Amino acid sequence: MSNQQACGTSQIAGCRFSVHPMTDDFVNVILGALEEVDTSKVWMETDDVSTCVRGRISHIFDVTNAIFVHAAKTGKHVAFSGTFSIGCPGDTEGDVYLAEDDVRLNEDVTKTIEQPTACQFALYPMGDGDYMDVIYHQVQEIAKLGVDVSSVHYATRLDGEANDIFKGLEQVFTKTKESGCSHTVMTVSLSANSPSHKGGK
Amino acid sequence: MSNQQACGTSQIAGCRFSVHPMTDDFVNVILGALEEVDTSKVWMETDDVSTCVRGRISHIFDVTNAIFVHAAKTGKHVAFSGTFSIGCPGDTEGDVYLAEDDVRLNEDVTKTIEQPTACQFALYPMGDGDYMDVIYHQVQEIAKLGVDVSSVHYATRLDGEANDIFKGLEQVFTKTKESGCSHTVMTVSLSANSPSHKGGK
Ligand SMILES: [Ca+2]
Repeated sequence: MSNQQACGTSQIAGCRFSVHPMTDDFVNVILGALEEVDTSKVWMETDDVSTCVRGRISHIFDVTNAIFVHAAKTGKHVAFSGTFSIGCPGDTEGDVYLAEDDVRLNEDVTKTIEQPTACQFALYPMGDGDYMDVIYHQVQEIAKLGVDVSSVHYATRLDGEANDIFKGLEQVFTKTKESGCSHTVMTVSLSANSPSHKGGK
Repeated sequence: MSNQQACGTSQIAGCRFSVHPMTDDFVNVILGALEEVDTSKVWMETDDVSTCVRGRISHIFDVTNAIFVHAAKTGKHVAFSGTFSIGCPGDTEGDVYLAEDDVRLNEDVTKTIEQPTACQFALYPMGDGDYMDVIYHQVQEIAKLGVDVSSVHYATRLDGEANDIFKGLEQVFTKTKESGCSHTVMTVSLSANSPSHKGGK
């Protein structure tokens, strides 16, 4: 159970996530989204419960952002649930992707897709590190991206454009890691096109 | 951001979760499941992204187990994503539910529902505590419930009956907390009736 260990200083980030389109046509929505995303700079494996991507932080967020907006642009109610993490022991099959540069392969297309989105996330920094002030400050930074920030039990809520939300999540995750946490974990739930979103979004 | 604080010794447990039926009829599947579940021993609040339940550990697992199997018994592909936690500061509106006894309100009905399920979970114990051995031992205990246990990146995988899986998750969560973690977090993804489950489950 490598995820349970006191973790090291691996620079490989990962995200295990699921995309759930609430439609009879869910298979095509998922496959269609995957087809439009360039995943060549990440290690990626999909099973019947979730997908795992691993590599540099920039590409983990680039790829998950792209998959979410491509699924959501169908107009179907789509949810994303995922756990981002960094600091667990890496392994050779994934570490090879750390050699990639930071040029994002999906950003040019993704940034053209407008998608109002609701998000709930929680950060779990483990180990030493002066992260409380960092997190507090970074959450304020998310608001500067034009995203509404509020609190719910166990989580912080973000409302705004999907691309801005992903940018904010990447910032707070990166800065928390840089503050000295040996193991940083962030859970993220996203929802688009829900009939119950505020304002009919 | 109460979730980010170094946490205390509150005995109130909580779970923030979403149930995602992959069908055009998702609203009725969710509402139908909620209707069949007795939530009177938990504090519960639903918004457009997720539902939060809080109270005693026994009732948190009783209620989430019941909601999942009632949604899954429709035969639709249903996913559950949630984060269970204990050790964050409680508050008076939720703490009142700690006065309830441990008699589970949904178990009699839930145990009659057979539902093959795939699960991926990860435990994040924070603070001091001799939890590594406890977790290792408890994961072996899950296998004794007749559940297949395996490993994937960042998570432990369980395959078996939904009710057995929930029982195993509650055991490992409870024992980890009892081992002395000041704050225990467990992420859980469940999937039922997926066309891509092994063995056509
Ligand atoms: Ca989750």
